[in-house]
Amino acid sequence: MPTHFLRLRDLSDEALENLVDLAIRMKQKPPNRLLAGKSLGLLFFNRSLRTRATFEIAMFQLGGQSIHLSSSADFWELEAEEGKVMDGPAPEHVKDAARVLSSYLDALAIRAVPSGPKYEVDRRDAPLHAWARHATVPLINMESFFEHPCQGLADVVTLRETFGASLRGIPFTLAWTNHPSAQTPSVAHSILHAAARLGMEVRVAHPEGYELDAEVLEGAREAARRSGGSVKICYDLSEALAGTRVVYARSWGSIPLHGQPTVEAAKRSRHREWIVNGAAMRRTDKGKFMHSMPVRRNVVVTDDVLDGEDSLVFRQAANRLHSQKAVLATLLQ
Amino acid sequence: MPTHFLRLRDLSDEALENLVDLAIRMKQKPPNRLLAGKSLGLLFFNRSLRTRATFEIAMFQLGGQSIHLSSSADFWELEAEEGKVMDGPAPEHVKDAARVLSSYLDALAIRAVPSGPKYEVDRRDAPLHAWARHATVPLINMESFFEHPCQGLADVVTLRETFGASLRGIPFTLAWTNHPSAQTPSVAHSILHAAARLGMEVRVAHPEGYELDAEVLEGAREAARRSGGSVKICYDLSEALAGTRVVYARSWGSIPLHGQPTVEAAKRSRHREWIVNGAAMRRTDKGKFMHSMPVRRNVVVTDDVLDGEDSLVFRQAANRLHSQKAVLATLLQ
Amino acid sequence: MPTHFLRLRDLSDEALENLVDLAIRMKQKPPNRLLAGKSLGLLFFNRSLRTRATFEIAMFQLGGQSIHLSSSADFWELEAEEGKVMDGPAPEHVKDAARVLSSYLDALAIRAVPSGPKYEVDRRDAPLHAWARHATVPLINMESFFEHPCQGLADVVTLRETFGASLRGIPFTLAWTNHPSAQTPSVAHSILHAAARLGMEVRVAHPEGYELDAEVLEGAREAARRSGGSVKICYDLSEALAGTRVVYARSWGSIPLHGQPTVEAAKRSRHREWIVNGAAMRRTDKGKFMHSMPVRRNVVVTDDVLDGEDSLVFRQAANRLHSQKAVLATLLQ
Repeated sequence: MPTHFLRLRDLSDEALENLVDLAIRMKQKPPNRLLAGKSLGLLFFNRSLRTRATFEIAMFQLGGQSIHLSSSADFWELEAEEGKVMDGPAPEHVKDAARVLSSYLDALAIRAVPSGPKYEVDRRDAPLHAWARHATVPLINMESFFEHPCQGLADVVTLRETFGASLRGIPFTLAWTNHPSAQTPSVAHSILHAAARLGMEVRVAHPEGYELDAEVLEGAREAARRSGGSVKICYDLSEALAGTRVVYARSWGSIPLHGQPTVEAAKRSRHREWIVNGAAMRRTDKGKFMHSMPVRRNVVVTDDVLDGEDSLVFRQAANRLHSQKAVLATLLQ
Repeated sequence: MPTHFLRLRDLSDEALENLVDLAIRMKQKPPNRLLAGKSLGLLFFNRSLRTRATFEIAMFQLGGQSIHLSSSADFWELEAEEGKVMDGPAPEHVKDAARVLSSYLDALAIRAVPSGPKYEVDRRDAPLHAWARHATVPLINMESFFEHPCQGLADVVTLRETFGASLRGIPFTLAWTNHPSAQTPSVAHSILHAAARLGMEVRVAHPEGYELDAEVLEGAREAARRSGGSVKICYDLSEALAGTRVVYARSWGSIPLHGQPTVEAAKRSRHREWIVNGAAMRRTDKGKFMHSMPVRRNVVVTDDVLDGEDSLVFRQAANRLHSQKAVLATLLQ
Repeated sequence: MPTHFLRLRDLSDEALENLVDLAIRMKQKPPNRLLAGKSLGLLFFNRSLRTRATFEIAMFQLGGQSIHLSSSADFWELEAEEGKVMDGPAPEHVKDAARVLSSYLDALAIRAVPSGPKYEVDRRDAPLHAWARHATVPLINMESFFEHPCQGLADVVTLRETFGASLRGIPFTLAWTNHPSAQTPSVAHSILHAAARLGMEVRVAHPEGYELDAEVLEGAREAARRSGGSVKICYDLSEALAGTRVVYARSWGSIPLHGQPTVEAAKRSRHREWIVNGAAMRRTDKGKFMHSMPVRRNVVVTDDVLDGEDSLVFRQAANRLHSQKAVLATLLQ
């Protein structure tokens, strides 16, 4: 396993397997004080409920400590450009903050989601990678614009618990849904990669104009080729649901309209029928419903599906705790 | 004791007695690591100094952990309406947040004080009760619009320490005071109920137009009937103080003018003489002064009374820690 | 050692020696659970990255707990005037907050930097001293307008590690530098006092109009007389650097222009050449570079100097943790 935990695709097959197995063992029997005396720094540039709670609890249950630092209350804008004459608003360079915090803490975790006008800039996740470059302790990605590996890992654990040790050949539908605002593709990217690399028969469904990042798609196809899985694009939700075993709902913004919120919202609002409801679920083969939360009820998915017995969403959320314990134990021990 | 700790009136006499006794024992000899490995989630929709500090210290001293989540920095608006199409500002439903947090935490504590235009709405404490309905772990009310049971319990502990095991027949004056803004009735409701149910001779003093909630008053009278106490309303502060043993000062807003801050402020400003000063205290029978803090010096009470030897306010504040330890130990063990 | 830790000049020579020695021992071999069960309250009226992280980690590594309370999210404006009729914005008096928190916590630490229009007012550090007057547990100054003793102590530890047990006679240059905004003199005051009292040959370099506080300078000269050191003022950076062994860079605002940000900024902007660069360092005698961070790269100091092998800045930052452990252990045990 690499030093940092930034993207699922950075992990070898073996490293991913080991994390999933460890998460499941952690869930069954919480280990005690594995990380006694260790401190984790949590750096939030964006809000969080599940992520923050699970990391703080994970460290506590393993005997360690977490320090919560938030850009809204505790620290300041950080400069990321090399060689800059720092006479602007940022009083500190990310390289200095990262190096100093690394001298105090045993690991850092960061949530930094850029939201600028240009897709080509945001997709690079510059803040995350600047921290990764300068931190001298392990860095954990708690969600960036492009990836959400902690969610992806919890999702894989949930799929394993539900379908058993091999996911090969199981139909899996990643379903774009309507949403009141343009969402980042982070969750979609992480689960798409994971499902493809685990050999699932992946279908990605979305309206025209909501194509995923070409490089991410190509990476998923490549992973599928190696695992014996497949990745297919559908512009029809109904078709993508037929006979599937998993419906993973997630909205994301239109790449060509990135940074144009009004135009994008007008386009998105024409796709209100992209919702997972009872009729949609009846097209599946006893399909399970998945979502990373927070979830817009009756916009993304109807109440009956979300609260029904085939919903895995609360299990996914609960597995965040155990998955992150596995990541922490692996990086920090 | 019920699963949640929302209102003192939900407790049986025995449950209340047990909590008070446990708080006094906790104060004398702090128990160690009773709650080792347990995590408490603190959800603040409003600011806090005493409450937050005492809950965090209580959990630490009992071997557990607390996670502090604040609506100003960490999470987002939560939808409370059932069946809502969630295309508005709230990205998550309270039922989902409550269920997910319940899967991570051993208990939740919430401070949520609605402040809308309608008294009939605010008095229902919808946010608190939505969390109570959906949480699957014990929920503690850290102050709502209508109740402040943690303060009420600390007040009972303080009265017991001061007057001994039986409070029956002791005159107790709940004195409305002036204040720069309309305060919620939470503290007044909790202590009124407690004093009545413990058999005290309760006098509620306030100007015309500041009558307490009719249902709360009727509940207090019913509690007094059962306990052998009494509840009397006085429109004259002087009369209510004559021969009393306790003066509990607290301001609250006028119900008929709820949601009309300018008109209410004008009415309130005509009652500047409703202040607890040395002359007022000399009318009592060696009366003790109580207040829940934060306290507006020289508006609610004069410096000499607050800092005098008959002031119990710092003891009340200190007892918050021990009372909450008793609540946590009872709910979580 | 006094009960509080507010200013290095309040410490006897022996108390300062003991703290430095203890910090160095703490660094070599972290003591375990010295402060088991103890709680420290951290009160931030201003933002913090290093200070907050190091205090939280220090308490955890010593077996204790810290409670983080911030004026931006948790508490409210506090009244400081005695006898005030509190009908303004502040709902609580500092004397009440300090007394109540003292009843819960084993020590308090405060960062409160006044930034009003008048130098004569700000230099008094009224908020800090109000807390010191009313707290009944030890109070630690985490930076005020006038002093930063935690930084000063870490700096002394760093100098000792670099130059050995005696600093007597070693040339030390406190170099004013350019900066985009008027900085407080806190760090300059603490290190100036420390260098003078440790017998160093101190040179203070700054442009005209940036003279330090007369009382602070006189105190430093008095300390130097007792220690066999010296304090000299230079209006020429080059001259102040010739043959020095340490360059401590720090910007501070012009006292005569305090509270006049536009005029002060215009004056400051004429001093862009006050930067520590490679040419400046070559005038020294293998000089070490020091700064308290956060640091404006290429405004205060150039990248090559900051990242060079003679830079002590990351060691200074790391020593914050060990120094504060020494302060906590000394005050709280």
